[in-house]
Amino acid sequence: MDLELARRLKQPNTTKIILCVLDGLGGLSRRETIRSELEKASIPNLDRLAARSEVGLSVPVGTGITPGSGPGHLALFGYDPYRFDIGRGVLEAVGIDFDLGPDDVAARGNFCTLDASGNISDRRAGRVATEHSARLVERLREIRLPGVQVLVEPVREHRFVLVLRGPGLDDRISTTDPQVTGVPPLPARGEAPEAAQSAALVNEFVRQATVMLQGEPQANGLMLRGFAKYPALPQFPEIWGLRSAALAVYPMYRGLAKLAGMDALACPGGLQEQLEVVRQRWDDYDFFFIHYKKTDAAGEDGDFERKCHALEEFDAWLPSLMETHPDVLMIAGDHSTPSTMAAHSWHPVPFLLHSAYGRDGNAQHFTEPECLKGSLGIFPAVDVMPLAMAHAMRFQKYGA
Amino acid sequence: MDLELARRLKQPNTTKIILCVLDGLGGLSRRETIRSELEKASIPNLDRLAARSEVGLSVPVGTGITPGSGPGHLALFGYDPYRFDIGRGVLEAVGIDFDLGPDDVAARGNFCTLDASGNISDRRAGRVATEHSARLVERLREIRLPGVQVLVEPVREHRFVLVLRGPGLDDRISTTDPQVTGVPPLPARGEAPEAAQSAALVNEFVRQATVMLQGEPQANGLMLRGFAKYPALPQFPEIWGLRSAALAVYPMYRGLAKLAGMDALACPGGLQEQLEVVRQRWDDYDFFFIHYKKTDAAGEDGDFERKCHALEEFDAWLPSLMETHPDVLMIAGDHSTPSTMAAHSWHPVPFLLHSAYGRDGNAQHFTEPECLKGSLGIFPAVDVMPLAMAHAMRFQKYGA
Repeated sequence: MDLELARRLKQPNTTKIILCVLDGLGGLSRRETIRSELEKASIPNLDRLAARSEVGLSVPVGTGITPGSGPGHLALFGYDPYRFDIGRGVLEAVGIDFDLGPDDVAARGNFCTLDASGNISDRRAGRVATEHSARLVERLREIRLPGVQVLVEPVREHRFVLVLRGPGLDDRISTTDPQVTGVPPLPARGEAPEAAQSAALVNEFVRQATVMLQGEPQANGLMLRGFAKYPALPQFPEIWGLRSAALAVYPMYRGLAKLAGMDALACPGGLQEQLEVVRQRWDDYDFFFIHYKKTDAAGEDGDFERKCHALEEFDAWLPSLMETHPDVLMIAGDHSTPSTMAAHSWHPVPFLLHSAYGRDGNAQHFTEPECLKGSLGIFPAVDVMPLAMAHAMRFQKYGA
Repeated sequence: MDLELARRLKQPNTTKIILCVLDGLGGLSRRETIRSELEKASIPNLDRLAARSEVGLSVPVGTGITPGSGPGHLALFGYDPYRFDIGRGVLEAVGIDFDLGPDDVAARGNFCTLDASGNISDRRAGRVATEHSARLVERLREIRLPGVQVLVEPVREHRFVLVLRGPGLDDRISTTDPQVTGVPPLPARGEAPEAAQSAALVNEFVRQATVMLQGEPQANGLMLRGFAKYPALPQFPEIWGLRSAALAVYPMYRGLAKLAGMDALACPGGLQEQLEVVRQRWDDYDFFFIHYKKTDAAGEDGDFERKCHALEEFDAWLPSLMETHPDVLMIAGDHSTPSTMAAHSWHPVPFLLHSAYGRDGNAQHFTEPECLKGSLGIFPAVDVMPLAMAHAMRFQKYGA
């Protein structure tokens, strides 16, 4: 939906909307059992809810397109993911409450393991411990570059954020991450003539860093990607007329919500704490975005059973969430992460919307094949917010 | 999908993709049996494959729009058929290896039978034999027009290609084919002021030709349509990063594939020979487009039983094709050609994609109603190539 139209149709109401994003929700069948994670897991509450909700499958970005977390979430928030493209560096920086300035260029950094020949042997440096990673980041802060300030911040495990601050920086810089092992990190290149100088600064940073990290057993190298400046996103609360709160454990999802203008509320403890915060702040907000990461983490690790457990954990928690009696409750995913692929995928994502105005479909369970039978069919994820607004009676009639 | 995005997302791989196009695949039920051609035909291999593949129904151009062969195929190749519109004349010319120049205007010609009053009594001149048609074409080559060269080439049966070569020609010329019998061929008209002179040349060609053909028992008249100049199509192998081969018996489909930049490999003998060529050239190509005409030919003739047989012939051949073990196998149609209508139609077309990453749906057979239950639902045919690229693991992730 065109955001101008959304602004025009929105009308005030007191209804409450909850959007639960189960990261990487969609899956695929294992060959042996011919059952996907959702089919295998015991999720009686989701199944029961699916049978009396509008269900379907959302296409995050486009047919055949595997989304990163950014576009996957932007689409669920109603932003056309082709039009609004946010660099990973900005996502990571905002997610750790880094105060990004208008001239800063941010990049997502990964510590990695380099072998004796300088080739990458582990792209995540054995998921080095967060504490150790933070100490390495402190050393990287000693790097000096001509004419710009170097800011480095730890994130989690092998991840960090690099921010270059100074006049004339350009974010059109290519990734240094080759995406495979067995080769060295790539040199950064300017993707436009104006970015050549910025790319040179990045390469000098990498050179000094690699010298500093020599002798580290795991994290003796680094890769940088997603160079980006702060984007100007239309603000979610204003577009939809919803006082909006984000409840996410992981920084990147808080960051994304903050870019969209939501209030990111601290709740590091996971589902129980997220529910507690929803209860406490019930009167302060109209819209609650609850992010659940475990489904994706297990899927990315290729751990079918753990993804089933993650689904079961969410399912067991769901009734307590429902006791808040939201007017619109949505269970969605930003993309599929089939355990059999151990990666994000392009497959449409099971989706469920429960409200007093839901129309019955033919789905009896919350699984990929049953969602095909739901009243929503296969639909674009950018339609999730217009649907929510309609079911929350927060959209006026279009035309006379 | 925007072709620029396709170029950006594509990544190298060694996977193989086969696209089988069963021309005019989709059908309609006969009233007596309440069964379509696909439901009536015995196609156990397609049925079995459908039950373990992603299936759906593709919309070739748009809801309610009956496509010609050109747009139907362009959409399957990933080209927006509204944006890329190729004249039939160009298709026919390229399909017979005619070396079309940038200033040429080509038209598809049909010999037809005119009655004593000059009205069309058979739009295909009784499908006059190819050999006889070729002799008639030789006579037409004697036609002289002021300021332009007249080139005429035989195709098959009643079909030929007319090419006018000379400066200042304009292809915005209306068809002379009234599409019905019992009326005379139409005069050509310029559809823009700049095309008036070109239309006049066409009418003079028709006038001289009709004099020449007097006395012919069947092919005593002709109709011209699809006036067109050579289009600049983005090249399929470059867009998708696929070395691409086309295996088609009929000239028009080879021509279309060549316009898209595929290599058209000779295989006049049909399915067995097409398979043989796939096997021989397996290492040379990443993408094989196999065209099967018999389904459409039977449908256009209104021959329900023959269309069933054509489906059964394809089905019996399918296992031998599957022995090549492509990473992605697709069974598609460029449009529906229901025998009950004896014509192309707008109905969505059964589609099947088999790969290691397919998601289960609820379809048990390869029929129109069962394909509705598949994991792909009803989807635009331009999404076929993005889907194939995803399943072939030839697309990178979109965004961070």
